[in-house]
Amino acid sequence: MQALPGFRDFLPDDCAARNYIFTQWRNVSRRYGFAEYDGPLLEELDLFVRKSGAEIVKQLYDFTDKGGRAVALRPEMTPTLARMVAASHRDFRKPIKWFSIPQMFRYERPQKGRLREHYQYNCDIIGEASPDADVELIAVCIDILRAFGLTADDVVVRISDREFWADFLRAQNVAEDRWQQVLEVIDKSEREAREKTAERLGDLAEAVFRILEEGGRSEKLDRIVDGLRQRGLADFVKVDLRIVRGLAYYTGVVFEAFDRAGKLRAIAGGGRYDNLIHQLSAGSASLPALGFAMGDVVLGELIRENAAASAKMKATMARDQQLDVYVVIAKEERRGHAVAQVQELRDRGYRVDYPLTEAKVGKQFQTAEHLNAEVAVLYGDEWPQVKVKRLATRDEQLVPHEELLARLVASSTLSSRAERSGVEGSRGSSER
Amino acid sequence: MQALPGFRDFLPDDCAARNYIFTQWRNVSRRYGFAEYDGPLLEELDLFVRKSGAEIVKQLYDFTDKGGRAVALRPEMTPTLARMVAASHRDFRKPIKWFSIPQMFRYERPQKGRLREHYQYNCDIIGEASPDADVELIAVCIDILRAFGLTADDVVVRISDREFWADFLRAQNVAEDRWQQVLEVIDKSEREAREKTAERLGDLAEAVFRILEEGGRSEKLDRIVDGLRQRGLADFVKVDLRIVRGLAYYTGVVFEAFDRAGKLRAIAGGGRYDNLIHQLSAGSASLPALGFAMGDVVLGELIRENAAASAKMKATMARDQQLDVYVVIAKEERRGHAVAQVQELRDRGYRVDYPLTEAKVGKQFQTAEHLNAEVAVLYGDEWPQVKVKRLATRDEQLVPHEELLARLVASSTLSSRAERSGVEGSRGSSER
Repeated sequence: MQALPGFRDFLPDDCAARNYIFTQWRNVSRRYGFAEYDGPLLEELDLFVRKSGAEIVKQLYDFTDKGGRAVALRPEMTPTLARMVAASHRDFRKPIKWFSIPQMFRYERPQKGRLREHYQYNCDIIGEASPDADVELIAVCIDILRAFGLTADDVVVRISDREFWADFLRAQNVAEDRWQQVLEVIDKSEREAREKTAERLGDLAEAVFRILEEGGRSEKLDRIVDGLRQRGLADFVKVDLRIVRGLAYYTGVVFEAFDRAGKLRAIAGGGRYDNLIHQLSAGSASLPALGFAMGDVVLGELIRENAAASAKMKATMARDQQLDVYVVIAKEERRGHAVAQVQELRDRGYRVDYPLTEAKVGKQFQTAEHLNAEVAVLYGDEWPQVKVKRLATRDEQLVPHEELLARLVASSTLSSRAERSGVEGSRGSSER
Repeated sequence: MQALPGFRDFLPDDCAARNYIFTQWRNVSRRYGFAEYDGPLLEELDLFVRKSGAEIVKQLYDFTDKGGRAVALRPEMTPTLARMVAASHRDFRKPIKWFSIPQMFRYERPQKGRLREHYQYNCDIIGEASPDADVELIAVCIDILRAFGLTADDVVVRISDREFWADFLRAQNVAEDRWQQVLEVIDKSEREAREKTAERLGDLAEAVFRILEEGGRSEKLDRIVDGLRQRGLADFVKVDLRIVRGLAYYTGVVFEAFDRAGKLRAIAGGGRYDNLIHQLSAGSASLPALGFAMGDVVLGELIRENAAASAKMKATMARDQQLDVYVVIAKEERRGHAVAQVQELRDRGYRVDYPLTEAKVGKQFQTAEHLNAEVAVLYGDEWPQVKVKRLATRDEQLVPHEELLARLVASSTLSSRAERSGVEGSRGSSER
């Protein structure tokens, strides 16, 4: 029996890789002053239909629950966020800066970069109309990519502005009810033959192509790029008016992050959606807002394909999965002392393992190596001394057992590990 | 519009409380050498039915997906674990020590301590028959409770042994097909009138009551308690043969953790299930195993009702949600310098926020207080000096702006925060 198609099992290495991604997402968000929230994985179906239309249902895991409610596994976070903000925004100072790492579900054919579930970092600023909020949001996106060891040579954030196109369409006397269709054609123009795009654009084709090829002037986008330049992040961005994002609800600056090599789907995308909370909350809250999302699947592919990023991930994972001490029991009559020592070390925040049953000493050392223990401590004939072996250097020392803890604490690598573990009084206890 | 009944929204404070619980679960597990895994939230319905029988379906969120598969949101982790272990156990040294923090779903009437979703810590040892593994597992459970600030005066782990009852029933010549029914009556005996229990036990009533009242002798349980005594954890446990756990698949030592006051449901429960992996994997893997689970809802209630535990949680959450620096922009012409400084501080791992739009200085300081910033740095008339104000003491200093970073690093609280953030080269980067 296997997992359902498009769903992942996370064996320990996979889980550590997933958690590595979560940790960078969390750390950068917190450095930017964003607070974490979450919502239910299951919501009323109508919440999603109200945002995206009835079309969305065929991509959803939707069903009727035992209470007769039409429900769905969440395909995206924004409707839940809007619901929560509408209910509680009066309790929070503006701007509200929130992030979340929800798991999302879509019934689609699984393919490269796209499964039926993924984890999707969501980051939103609510209640701030200033373009500096757009700069702040794009900066978080870039700094997250940097946290993974990616550089401006690896990734690019292409930024654009829906208002630029609104001004253009107004100037061209295009009726508002045709705007969304034109924007969708522009959105697809990169992936479609020029003739086909021209045909769909009709009389607008020439003017649109001129902008796409020669660029357009946008003071707002210049200001955004200047803001990123002040932060030293301008190398990561490119104004590109072809980015419009298909979704109808964007109202201003929009952006998407890509690998420079252009081999993968978009890594992240988002923008300003000043009217959406009003619409989704049926008018009960009216707040300018902007946000972006980044999924773990495409990002994971990019990290694995990038030498520096994958080296950074592996080094962090190895350090994180490492055991501090493996206690080797060479004489069963020492088990009692050994186990008491295991407990004391764990109480101090060390990661410690030992054989739960009698085993040959050679096999115990193999286990210690396999678990990537920094130190093995042997309880045997030397008692009341114990043998401390540093596995990387094979360096061995005999230590009176009552001095073991002090010796380990004096070792700089082992003491800092214990400090950052969740031990009583430690500062790092809830750093996730 | 609200969340579905029995489902929770996690506003930032709720999310921080949830993450606090997750962090203790993770930290203690890792100190014990357990590795984290996870599985899909959605599985084939049959996976759960094979373990628990068709009865389970009426408690599940089950439905038919768009591909015609009968699927269900997971109500528990063990079937997924068994599936994963059956497929991959040859790649891992025994014993396999794994933990997970999955979200679970049951369609039940929501009530105190019981919602329709909860997060459930799962901890299992696979491939080890020795009673020392039972000791290790019960010790993790106790040390998790200790990590929350709970003592032996607050909680008790009641331990028992299915084999004790199997021996008893064999000695009483009870047919094996009646055992499960008798065990379920014993399981319920605490919550049921004595006469009713007696009636259900029939001719076994006298012998069973004698054991429940006078206790029974179990060398195995004595050994478990001795093992916990070696670790200094004996105060937390009590042999109590009334604990049998209703579920049919337990084969040996079983245990449940309760608040001493007896006000809440069980906080945790588990035991040895040596035949279950064989059964669930249709014979493809045969491994002795044991595990336990602890949900976040009852645990959260216990923490909130316990003065020491709730004080510990609040202190950790406050420290964790604190901002390091709030940058106050008193003169808009200093915004560029201020923002460049914000970026530099964030790059160094500090948690920094600032006003995205022009605001009165007084209001900015209010925001700094509201965000619980340790330090406010003011960019104004004093430029090229900046004013550094420690919010707790109101202590102010003028500092040349180019010396700001060095001054903050020299401050011990702020430098250690930056160290444990996910900055390049920092050791703590992936500690979650």
